[in-house]
Amino acid sequence: MTTTALYASRMWPPVRRGAGEATDPALDLLYHLGLVGRTDATGVHTLLPLGLRVHDRMAAIARTAFEERGALAFAAPTLQSRRLWEETGRWRSYQREGALLTVRSSSGDEMCLAPTSEEITAATVREHLRSFRDLPVRLFLSTSKFRDELSPRGGLMRGREFTMADAYTFDTSPDGMRESTAFLNEACTAALTGMGLPGVFQAPADGGAISAGPSTEHLVLSDAGQSTIVACDHCGNRGDGAVTPTHPAPPPAAPVVNVIAFVLTHPDGNIQPAAVAVRSELKVSARKVAAATGALRVALIEPQDLPGILGKEAGTLTPWDAADSPDTLLLFDTSVAALDEFAISDGAGGLRSGVTWNGDPDLGALKVSGLDLAEASDGSRCTLCPGTHRAVRAVEVAHVFELGTQYSQPMKLAFTDHAGRQAVPWMACSGIGVTRCMQTAADLHRDHQGLRWKPGTGPADVHLAVLRSDQPEMQERTDRLVQDLTSRGLCLFVDDRPLPAGEKLRYARLLGLPHAAVLSPDRPAEEIEVISRWTGRTTLTQSGHIPQLATGG
Amino acid sequence: MTTTALYASRMWPPVRRGAGEATDPALDLLYHLGLVGRTDATGVHTLLPLGLRVHDRMAAIARTAFEERGALAFAAPTLQSRRLWEETGRWRSYQREGALLTVRSSSGDEMCLAPTSEEITAATVREHLRSFRDLPVRLFLSTSKFRDELSPRGGLMRGREFTMADAYTFDTSPDGMRESTAFLNEACTAALTGMGLPGVFQAPADGGAISAGPSTEHLVLSDAGQSTIVACDHCGNRGDGAVTPTHPAPPPAAPVVNVIAFVLTHPDGNIQPAAVAVRSELKVSARKVAAATGALRVALIEPQDLPGILGKEAGTLTPWDAADSPDTLLLFDTSVAALDEFAISDGAGGLRSGVTWNGDPDLGALKVSGLDLAEASDGSRCTLCPGTHRAVRAVEVAHVFELGTQYSQPMKLAFTDHAGRQAVPWMACSGIGVTRCMQTAADLHRDHQGLRWKPGTGPADVHLAVLRSDQPEMQERTDRLVQDLTSRGLCLFVDDRPLPAGEKLRYARLLGLPHAAVLSPDRPAEEIEVISRWTGRTTLTQSGHIPQLATGG
Repeated sequence: MTTTALYASRMWPPVRRGAGEATDPALDLLYHLGLVGRTDATGVHTLLPLGLRVHDRMAAIARTAFEERGALAFAAPTLQSRRLWEETGRWRSYQREGALLTVRSSSGDEMCLAPTSEEITAATVREHLRSFRDLPVRLFLSTSKFRDELSPRGGLMRGREFTMADAYTFDTSPDGMRESTAFLNEACTAALTGMGLPGVFQAPADGGAISAGPSTEHLVLSDAGQSTIVACDHCGNRGDGAVTPTHPAPPPAAPVVNVIAFVLTHPDGNIQPAAVAVRSELKVSARKVAAATGALRVALIEPQDLPGILGKEAGTLTPWDAADSPDTLLLFDTSVAALDEFAISDGAGGLRSGVTWNGDPDLGALKVSGLDLAEASDGSRCTLCPGTHRAVRAVEVAHVFELGTQYSQPMKLAFTDHAGRQAVPWMACSGIGVTRCMQTAADLHRDHQGLRWKPGTGPADVHLAVLRSDQPEMQERTDRLVQDLTSRGLCLFVDDRPLPAGEKLRYARLLGLPHAAVLSPDRPAEEIEVISRWTGRTTLTQSGHIPQLATGG
Repeated sequence: MTTTALYASRMWPPVRRGAGEATDPALDLLYHLGLVGRTDATGVHTLLPLGLRVHDRMAAIARTAFEERGALAFAAPTLQSRRLWEETGRWRSYQREGALLTVRSSSGDEMCLAPTSEEITAATVREHLRSFRDLPVRLFLSTSKFRDELSPRGGLMRGREFTMADAYTFDTSPDGMRESTAFLNEACTAALTGMGLPGVFQAPADGGAISAGPSTEHLVLSDAGQSTIVACDHCGNRGDGAVTPTHPAPPPAAPVVNVIAFVLTHPDGNIQPAAVAVRSELKVSARKVAAATGALRVALIEPQDLPGILGKEAGTLTPWDAADSPDTLLLFDTSVAALDEFAISDGAGGLRSGVTWNGDPDLGALKVSGLDLAEASDGSRCTLCPGTHRAVRAVEVAHVFELGTQYSQPMKLAFTDHAGRQAVPWMACSGIGVTRCMQTAADLHRDHQGLRWKPGTGPADVHLAVLRSDQPEMQERTDRLVQDLTSRGLCLFVDDRPLPAGEKLRYARLLGLPHAAVLSPDRPAEEIEVISRWTGRTTLTQSGHIPQLATGG
């Protein structure tokens, strides 16, 4: 970690009087104080000198958290071949989602810009893996990642280019994978704690484009968050609506039942259509359908594909149609099973109103038992207590995924097990959004006087405000102190501008380093005032004690 | 800098017996010992855990060299907009050379993958620059760069993705720029010395796609080098053939004179054709033509464009044609002016043989005075001594460029000078090929026993070979020593595999950390044998003295 002192008089961008107001939103403070710069590529930022120090410290904190627990850090490249991404089918699936940025070399090689590193890490392990004795392997990397975000927004919260600190584990068995998942959750927690993020909690989540298996998000509540989760207003249980168990909200006055069609892929490779009856104001969770049916993958059938698969136009599928189709699995969400009277499609473009389960000849023949298949959402009921779910905004700062053999199988990773048989390793992975954590920490800790950085996380450790910095004697005192403190591992930001004390202290509070030290001609050289940005308390101390004060928090 | 100890028993790739032979070429050693991995994207590598440590140390050495001298480190993104690159015209010129990798977002934004950072750094400065008081600015960055190399080769020597540590300076005047150029050369020298590269020398060079102005290469002689330079076999003066002053080699038995056509762009924007007569076995240096004529740019006229510009088919241009064309500048290389008898085109597809300057009616009318316009090459003569140039291979490890206002002018950077007038800053820049330096250091230092790393540059500081590592008592001793040495800032590679001493020492020599320390059950816990990889000398020492030994070199 670099500890060369930074000087306000030589900073870039120049430190201007009045640039940045304490009342600015956190992202604007990062811009105005010159930590982060916009570029004319949408969703792409420059880390300016003060911001790069924050970034590098946070990345180093993450790396240390993983390395100290036994993971090995390596670096995968940005450019990855199409061939590699086709081994797992993700070249197509990521492109379909429009999330992949791709390049073609003049010699015709197609490559993508790494959005994540499952393939390249698995390929790195595949090349050298022979025996169960080589496992487990736990690899960590902290590199730029790229996503073709349609609407990048929120500064560093969701960009096209960002730093992700990810880790990948390879084990001999599902039990090993779960141990590695615990390892990943623990290392992520240590990293996020080291970064000084307050109020991080874990919640079960949807693995999205990364994993068909269970996953755990590390979240912090924040209105600046890009994720919406549900939180029980009574017991506080929180999580992604797609996986949080729920009882349905009370039905509206005139409930309508829809039937939504999916294609299930079973572990044996068989494919089966499924029809899910759900109240029209609720959304079926593909993840809950997978959990309820044991399917590996659950994909919504697009309206244009419905006639070909189920012989019905979109909006006309009914439970009795689905029950008549011998292959089709018919499921009822709890929101539907409990209804007394409701409206439902008549199967031909019209609506039957006021129907009941037993009063309708088509429905009467069906066996209806409700499953929890709808996403929890604002107003749905907690299953752990009598509380109600509220939609709240959160920042996903890390995510841990069980991957199973989802990547290792198609990529043909193999090792010889204890019994001499060929076996496939079980994978898990995690990702920490380092640039996102930077902005989140700034946002959650700032107060009415400006930014506040936890010890070890800001652009520097100590803000050295030198009064009468125009006096040669004060310059000499500054040089001596900088040399002494730097050699003892402290990183300093030295405000050596010819400005009055009040202006310097205002700027020190605005930039928010954990401690400011005031070097004044009115005091003996060894006597220094240290002000904590967190408590506001001033301590008069000997300069030799500053490192202790600064690392003590 | 991370100092977490690495363990041979938990390394990835696994440390295998017999993987890597001392006689392997350096690049193969980097592959076989698991420092660097190939990927299935051509010219793109993975830095494996041991290699990443080397890379990060070298990058940190470069950063410190620049930061300690007052440069500020920042990070520019990989993705840069087409708009930005069009401001300097380099979107087109880089694409024409086929050197630019480009992406298009799904929303239609065109971007390139940064091959270098003049534009983005100038844009970063432009946004905040106001007054001469803000200058000079010296910015450093160490990031991945991308080039669409047609035939990537030599491992890390020339890849499509590599780490470059570059720096950019902005000054108020040409004198300021030259001070900054001296700063860049000094910082590059400090960085390359810190990386332990032996025999680095500076030589004037051709600025290529970066700069039309003077530039200085930092080179090391090596057969693995991708550059060919000339070196005088007598006085040792060395440099890029395109800029090294030269007297021509003695003419062949039957010399032929060619006339090569260029377009000059003068500082006032005027455009002028130029014809250069040169001996057919020599190559005209566009850089020397620019120096001789004061032109800003000198571009070869392609054969298909020749008839349109000079009214002649390719191969039929003669000195008297050029002299007859009123706009065209006619120049003679010294290799031609000194000829007695030669052959030359007759202007119509045939060749006139045995002509002399005065004996030919067309040539007799010309005023012939020779200029040094041909590239120095194997066999040409040194201008400083009676020696002869020899072509030798070298690695370009760094390059420093005077940029002048080549970027700041078209990008409209401006500041208010002392007199209150608007002025354009003068720029310079430098680049160090960090990944290339890694491989070059490995190549130049390896010996018949394997790799050798200079202190501070290898995967770790000390190779701790633990004998009888299966004994619990030895494991305890190892843990205590690792904890002690790590807390004192040393980075350790611990060979804790259950193997005989000979095997471990062979591997220690192969991996080449500057020092190996042997922990043996036959000695008291505090007594340790330390073997220098550079001198081969063994010192029996107290464990407490290891940090001193290891940092002492």
